[in-house]
Amino acid sequence: MLYWDNNATTATAPEVLEAMLPYLRECFYNPSAAYGPAAAVRRAIGNAREQVAALVGAHADEIVFTSGGTEATNTALACFTSTLTLATEHPATLNTAAGDACPVLTNGLADLPTWKELLPGHDGASFAWANHETGVIQPVHSLAQSAHGAGLRVHADLVQAAGKVPVQLHGHEIDFASLSAHKLHGPKGVGALYIRRGTPFEKPFLTGGDQEDLRRAGTENVPGIIGFGKAAELALAAAESYAALATLRDRFVELLRAGGAEVAVNGAAAPRLPHVLNMRVPGVPAEHLLHLLEPAGLLCSAGSACTSSHPEPSHVLLAMGLTDAQARESLRISLSRFTTAEEVERGAHIFLQALRTLQAAQSPVTGPVEVYR
Amino acid sequence: MLYWDNNATTATAPEVLEAMLPYLRECFYNPSAAYGPAAAVRRAIGNAREQVAALVGAHADEIVFTSGGTEATNTALACFTSTLTLATEHPATLNTAAGDACPVLTNGLADLPTWKELLPGHDGASFAWANHETGVIQPVHSLAQSAHGAGLRVHADLVQAAGKVPVQLHGHEIDFASLSAHKLHGPKGVGALYIRRGTPFEKPFLTGGDQEDLRRAGTENVPGIIGFGKAAELALAAAESYAALATLRDRFVELLRAGGAEVAVNGAAAPRLPHVLNMRVPGVPAEHLLHLLEPAGLLCSAGSACTSSHPEPSHVLLAMGLTDAQARESLRISLSRFTTAEEVERGAHIFLQALRTLQAAQSPVTGPVEVYR
Repeated sequence: MLYWDNNATTATAPEVLEAMLPYLRECFYNPSAAYGPAAAVRRAIGNAREQVAALVGAHADEIVFTSGGTEATNTALACFTSTLTLATEHPATLNTAAGDACPVLTNGLADLPTWKELLPGHDGASFAWANHETGVIQPVHSLAQSAHGAGLRVHADLVQAAGKVPVQLHGHEIDFASLSAHKLHGPKGVGALYIRRGTPFEKPFLTGGDQEDLRRAGTENVPGIIGFGKAAELALAAAESYAALATLRDRFVELLRAGGAEVAVNGAAAPRLPHVLNMRVPGVPAEHLLHLLEPAGLLCSAGSACTSSHPEPSHVLLAMGLTDAQARESLRISLSRFTTAEEVERGAHIFLQALRTLQAAQSPVTGPVEVYR
Repeated sequence: MLYWDNNATTATAPEVLEAMLPYLRECFYNPSAAYGPAAAVRRAIGNAREQVAALVGAHADEIVFTSGGTEATNTALACFTSTLTLATEHPATLNTAAGDACPVLTNGLADLPTWKELLPGHDGASFAWANHETGVIQPVHSLAQSAHGAGLRVHADLVQAAGKVPVQLHGHEIDFASLSAHKLHGPKGVGALYIRRGTPFEKPFLTGGDQEDLRRAGTENVPGIIGFGKAAELALAAAESYAALATLRDRFVELLRAGGAEVAVNGAAAPRLPHVLNMRVPGVPAEHLLHLLEPAGLLCSAGSACTSSHPEPSHVLLAMGLTDAQARESLRISLSRFTTAEEVERGAHIFLQALRTLQAAQSPVTGPVEVYR
């Protein structure tokens, strides 16, 4: 089975599980307790905080562990009264932020002049470093600098970018950033919020106990945090294998085209995450393709898993100017650092076969095919 | 090592870890995805939801998974404008609720006449079924019924009670209830909010994706949820072993008294969780005892782990009328369903030895002892 939906979630790396196991067994102590074994758990959390900080070029004391990317983003956005976002943001941002959404260009990049015009009247800006559906990487520096210059505080959603492309938060005027472990071969149920040193943070989102230096209440998800730390360490060490993925991804498109498929790549004109490919075959609904790809051994998706219960076309692609029909033709392939060249060959073969099956069924003689669920 | 701090957290049961492992290995799929393997993960979450619901006598569709008890409580309290709580609540409630705190009697039970007087002017009531420090079990039915009768919605903090004493939520006028997995031999990082059928819940706390039937956004902590389900199933099956713990707990006090220790039990006059003992030896600061108990092989605590970084005396005990000094003499012992009679004998022996060491050092000849960290 080719699992090519790594933007939805990733397989937990074996080393990550290995690192977690002691904390699901003998090291179960509450890190807030006063006795020695609890202090050892506190130290392990401190180590994981260093590992996560290192992944994004931050100080350990700038990392607050949360239950995931959504909680991190909700926490940051709760610090703003009115937020300027992009129209292509993840629902965790769009369904949380009060304010405006700036349009994007047809390549998926923020419309910078409009962004700058829209800044006044907001106290917060929030954008994804890289988009969850297209992988399009925003002009982070310009977005952050212009927002900061206009007096806004800046939140960057790093959920899809961290561990996939180099991120040095201290090189940007970013006050908050969201991270999620399960997008980089860590466990589900844990994420982090970066809060830059000196950024006012008066209002924790979860209130109660004194955990996380009074910035996030609730007993720490110790095994999750340890696993996140390990996953961050592994991702940082594997930076080169991610960079190499762009070649495999582009090879896949080449193979499809060589096989006679007409393939349009969404966001092709923009910098993109190396492992993400959002593409469409004109005239072929993605849903029909997916129904043939799964039994043939290729799992990918028609959009964000967080909205896959919605039959609506992707808001990300509509914002990039695709028509409803074009958006419904689009599917997202997201490789992992474990994807091999052989798998890409095999995936292309599966894809082309599925396409031929559909196109044969859609020939003028038979009329358009309906695939029933 | 005798781990007698099970109100802080519990060891993850081996069966719980066993149940989690497939979801940390091959069943890693995002439950929101459209393909078959993801549907299997969705079904497993549904099964865990049934297991957790069964523990507290609820319907599965009344259970929303959260990142823990603190998030569940924060979510419920966010539904209220002004909340009436008890003065002995956990920080997750006291540091979150806007409103008033009703006093308790010296036995730790709510002052019911005052509770009823204070109800008007609030739209929410929140109380712990059983207290986290003393184990005192509140008159749940009267508290909930009176609050409901006055038009308030009712939240019960079940974090310490669930799995330790029988809970049938449908037998009470309770709208919301908080649960935590790691207090009942489940994993850290997962909990649940009970939302009674028909209770208005317009405002999810975490917003973003469509998860949890639109009641809690964020990719599900799948391994945590599966572990929580298993832990709930085990706790329900072990109900009798919890009931038997009261005998062991009381035996411990008997042994101390038989050994010459003057022991005062906080909340002795109230119904209490069978595994919890909050006690003091007049004249002996708990901190001094703890420093001798740990190296002798007994781990317990001077109060809630969530506030153990605070040197202040317990607000719970002060609310019950103890003096500062009496509160500082108090320590909390919380057994587990795995505690044996032999361990209780051993624990009493350790305790008495520590007490004798301290009392010898505190004799009139040497003056009060100072134990340095």
